[in-house]
Amino acid sequence: MINITLPDGSVKQVKSGSTPFDVAQSISHGLARNVISASYNGNTVETSTPLNEDGKLVLYTFNDKDGKKALWHSAAHLMAQAILKFYPKAKLTIGPPIDQGFYYDIDFGDESISEKDFPKIEKTMLEIARQKHEFQLRAVSKQEALEYYKSNPFKTELIENLEDGEITFCDHDDFTDLCRGGHIPHTGFIKAVKLLSAAGAYWRGDETNPQLTRVYGIAFPKQKMLKEYLELLEEAKKRDHRKLGRELELFTFSQKVGQGLPLWLPKGAALRERLENFLKDAQQNAGYEQVVSPHIGHKDLYVTSGHYEKYGEDSFQPISTPKDNEEFLLKPMNCPHHCEIYNSAAWSYKDLPKRYAEFGTVYRYEQSGELHGLTRVRGFTQDDAHIFCTPDQLDEEFKKVIDLVLYVFGSLGFENFTAQVSLRDPENKEKYIGSDKNWQKAEQAIIKAAEEKGLNYHVETGEAAFYGPKLDFMVKDALQREWQLGTIQVDYNLPERFDLTYKGADNEMHRPVMIHRAPFGSMERFIAILLEHTAGNFPLWLTNEQAIILSISEKYENYSKKVLNLLKKHEIRARTDHRSETMGKKIRDAETQKIPFMIIVGENEAENVTVSIRKHGGEDLGEMLIEEFSALITNEINAQKRYFEE
Amino acid sequence: MINITLPDGSVKQVKSGSTPFDVAQSISHGLARNVISASYNGNTVETSTPLNEDGKLVLYTFNDKDGKKALWHSAAHLMAQAILKFYPKAKLTIGPPIDQGFYYDIDFGDESISEKDFPKIEKTMLEIARQKHEFQLRAVSKQEALEYYKSNPFKTELIENLEDGEITFCDHDDFTDLCRGGHIPHTGFIKAVKLLSAAGAYWRGDETNPQLTRVYGIAFPKQKMLKEYLELLEEAKKRDHRKLGRELELFTFSQKVGQGLPLWLPKGAALRERLENFLKDAQQNAGYEQVVSPHIGHKDLYVTSGHYEKYGEDSFQPISTPKDNEEFLLKPMNCPHHCEIYNSAAWSYKDLPKRYAEFGTVYRYEQSGELHGLTRVRGFTQDDAHIFCTPDQLDEEFKKVIDLVLYVFGSLGFENFTAQVSLRDPENKEKYIGSDKNWQKAEQAIIKAAEEKGLNYHVETGEAAFYGPKLDFMVKDALQREWQLGTIQVDYNLPERFDLTYKGADNEMHRPVMIHRAPFGSMERFIAILLEHTAGNFPLWLTNEQAIILSISEKYENYSKKVLNLLKKHEIRARTDHRSETMGKKIRDAETQKIPFMIIVGENEAENVTVSIRKHGGEDLGEMLIEEFSALITNEINAQKRYFEE
Repeated sequence: MINITLPDGSVKQVKSGSTPFDVAQSISHGLARNVISASYNGNTVETSTPLNEDGKLVLYTFNDKDGKKALWHSAAHLMAQAILKFYPKAKLTIGPPIDQGFYYDIDFGDESISEKDFPKIEKTMLEIARQKHEFQLRAVSKQEALEYYKSNPFKTELIENLEDGEITFCDHDDFTDLCRGGHIPHTGFIKAVKLLSAAGAYWRGDETNPQLTRVYGIAFPKQKMLKEYLELLEEAKKRDHRKLGRELELFTFSQKVGQGLPLWLPKGAALRERLENFLKDAQQNAGYEQVVSPHIGHKDLYVTSGHYEKYGEDSFQPISTPKDNEEFLLKPMNCPHHCEIYNSAAWSYKDLPKRYAEFGTVYRYEQSGELHGLTRVRGFTQDDAHIFCTPDQLDEEFKKVIDLVLYVFGSLGFENFTAQVSLRDPENKEKYIGSDKNWQKAEQAIIKAAEEKGLNYHVETGEAAFYGPKLDFMVKDALQREWQLGTIQVDYNLPERFDLTYKGADNEMHRPVMIHRAPFGSMERFIAILLEHTAGNFPLWLTNEQAIILSISEKYENYSKKVLNLLKKHEIRARTDHRSETMGKKIRDAETQKIPFMIIVGENEAENVTVSIRKHGGEDLGEMLIEEFSALITNEINAQKRYFEE
Repeated sequence: MINITLPDGSVKQVKSGSTPFDVAQSISHGLARNVISASYNGNTVETSTPLNEDGKLVLYTFNDKDGKKALWHSAAHLMAQAILKFYPKAKLTIGPPIDQGFYYDIDFGDESISEKDFPKIEKTMLEIARQKHEFQLRAVSKQEALEYYKSNPFKTELIENLEDGEITFCDHDDFTDLCRGGHIPHTGFIKAVKLLSAAGAYWRGDETNPQLTRVYGIAFPKQKMLKEYLELLEEAKKRDHRKLGRELELFTFSQKVGQGLPLWLPKGAALRERLENFLKDAQQNAGYEQVVSPHIGHKDLYVTSGHYEKYGEDSFQPISTPKDNEEFLLKPMNCPHHCEIYNSAAWSYKDLPKRYAEFGTVYRYEQSGELHGLTRVRGFTQDDAHIFCTPDQLDEEFKKVIDLVLYVFGSLGFENFTAQVSLRDPENKEKYIGSDKNWQKAEQAIIKAAEEKGLNYHVETGEAAFYGPKLDFMVKDALQREWQLGTIQVDYNLPERFDLTYKGADNEMHRPVMIHRAPFGSMERFIAILLEHTAGNFPLWLTNEQAIILSISEKYENYSKKVLNLLKKHEIRARTDHRSETMGKKIRDAETQKIPFMIIVGENEAENVTVSIRKHGGEDLGEMLIEEFSALITNEINAQKRYFEE
């Protein structure tokens, strides 16, 4: 008998040689039906692998990340098998699961594959799947493996880099592949497949190597899941922030200015400024003070902060100044500058906390292949702030920052989020800077704050940075994709390195604690996420144009202008559309521009001194007084900005 | 007889050998009395130099820059003479006039000079001056000169670098100096002298050379002028923006962040943002659109703009990125980025003008010795905008920009300014880019705009940049110092280089004209000038704290808080001073902080629900209702922001 420990801490005694599937069955039939993968003592195993020693077992269904990985890895085998049926001369290379699905890099030789070939391959995959072939791992010697792949130079290269005795093949049906394992029990779990695209890729990602074709696919254990996935994919394409950014004229890129360096067009700059002002106001209420610091810093600053030694060839290189022999760096973060601002005066405990905020633009080099719209850029503006406080104030400050983050999420329609508290590894205390007492205080402060604020959070031990514990927010967008937004990070390191002090009530000098925090993270990435989350239908308080006035004919232009002036007095952002187009065309254009309210004015309205309101999307709100419309907008805005107002 | 042409173009026939003084006398006795220097055919001459050929003569009084130069140069001779009387072993080197006064670099050997020695030297100088010794230039051979200065290695070095036959000495009284000329007629014109300071200076500015003592002085033709000058000097010291910036906690510098890179403290950042928002509002009313661009640009951007080839070793060096082999530059100006924003879409003449505005922070390297507070920095934020318009719109756009500049000057209390219109040299048209027709149009547009707006302007022919004509504003501050603020510059070059186009009414593609403009110039320099102009007493609309509430005792703290809340509702920026200090101390502190209004509350005020108002500087406005006080502030602000409001 061996002892199997399950994730909930319970221990099961089973016969040595039992498989994960056996264990699942001993728990419940329902679980056994859905288990498709497992890990034992931290290593991926098959559900059919015999367990011969005590250990920790985790069972995965498709709902788990590891379950998806097993299913997609297995589906990659099926795709390769099906492709070889149509392209017998194709040479397989590698085929891993990825975040969403899997791919296989294949050398098609003189032949080629395109989207029109996908249906027959998908059909063949499903036929094989229905036959419920088991995946079976089998050890082979290096010589056997090389012999099997003697006409495939890619697999040969892979095998040559493996240790003899550690090489396995995986068989199912008539197909065999070099493979380390991690499969579903049998092909029958795959109920739906879709090949997504084919694109060029270099062998091992090196452009001096031969070019292969990377075929992307995805698979699911239920047909319905594929349907939902394809719908989401379609929706995601429509919501792609690069596409919306272009359509709504928010930002652009220029090869001459440089890749990954966004240029904010007037409408984007206005949106961004409104977002900044929204947070500035909230921060002012919360006792923050704005500061302004330069975008470069002397080498000495980064030697002091410790960043200089980490400056590698992956970074923007230093800026030299031959005459004075000085060296400057583009600033990759704002904290060292803020430490120097703190250091420009002497503080007493009565002055703390100091909360320095700055919309600070920072520059970090990314390789061109990794750039993506506004989510991966080389220059971005952080909604940064650094709080310098006494250890006793940490509690209160942490709660205040959580309030601020929740205010931001609420005002921008992110309803669905969780939090992660990252603590130090208590068994490796020497890895961390700062006293035991302070760490305990800080960790307790974070957990207490998360509890008090009713956050849906989980604790990760050992995930803290060496300089302090932290709290991260993970937000789900409208397409159920997760984004990390909003970090709150305690720091004992920089106060030490910059020798920051304050005079305590005891008249002695003490070291303040520092909190880094950024609710948006970066303006660029946040606006990208917000664009995809809202599909460009920004909250009413944020959107550039809240209303557009469409006059039925030229006759009502004067009344239309009068309405515009009244709206301006009510601080409603609006404009008129007096083009000589049909009402249908004007409404369609306003829809494309995602303007929340269309105000239609004609004979009736001019006579009654009213407006007729049509919402974006089509809802007809009927005729009303301008005061009523203004109240309607004000109410909707107040509902969106719901916390923090006094 | 020879023909002498005067600056007004008139020609005088005089006998060959006549002196500038003779010519002055032939014009008027008053002029002759005041002429102290002259130039002939562009060369400085003495008023006693005989003129032997036709030429252009300019006569200078002390009101002219060249007149001051002659008087200060002459006073340097007197100072050297007086110093030698007290330090016979001192060795003279060079002693030129400067912007304000003169200096002489002297080797005092084992002896030294300090401020306590100044009065006796000044007294001696005045004694010599009163004797009305003439300054007389005399040619000497190189040998004679070397012989005279055989025990002075500095003068010997100077003489060795001169051509024999071109060496002159200047004699007055018993004193002789190596000198090229440019003196006043006799010492009697010097009526007041003041030695200002003594400081170390290296011979020829090279720190490997012996150290000398630089003695600074100033002199005037009237005692009253010296008195006024010393008062201004005293006032300038009090108003030094570096001193006020520290006292008002506006900004700081850090050696670690780097010299010339200001860090804006909370109060400074708030002031700066208010100033930016003020201009943003005005610009929005004037049809500008804000954009945001990065602080770096790819090398290609500056190759296109033409700046790359001018990038020398005096500049911040390029930022390299080894992996992608790209090169970026810190942006020294915003225009290339804005050209790329213009280029991101296709425009028709109906879309123009496009007015892109950005508070863009730029970086330009200055040697550390040239840095000065906020007026000479290495990073600064321009209130930049670029207008892209058709040639026909230039007229109207130029006038609108002048309106904006006048609005800025008026709102900030700069009442005293002139303008300079810089045109091309019509005799060297080939030096300039752009068609003859466009230049004529632009130059006429500028002059017409200056006329219509009633500017006090003068025209400088040949002073235009190669890429277009311009208009500069010169502003006098409260100490009568002149600052260049606000440039409006036409540009035909960048539209060409960036191939900017628009589709005209004729359906053909045309080249837009570009206008660069910045009313403030740079936020840093502007705030420095504003600090010195206002001595830190900012206009009421701009200042951080408009009022402070001082309660007579603890008893009235509640009423004081109530007043604060009411003021906030009236959007008045105020705070309370509830420290347990005397009223006298609280008032003194509020005075130091230059808070415009002190609101005193005690028994009377709490009972009557009123406030008693004391203005900064001491004026007592008496007791009034809060509404009255609010109206008083609103009226004062409206008077300050007087143009442009709708």
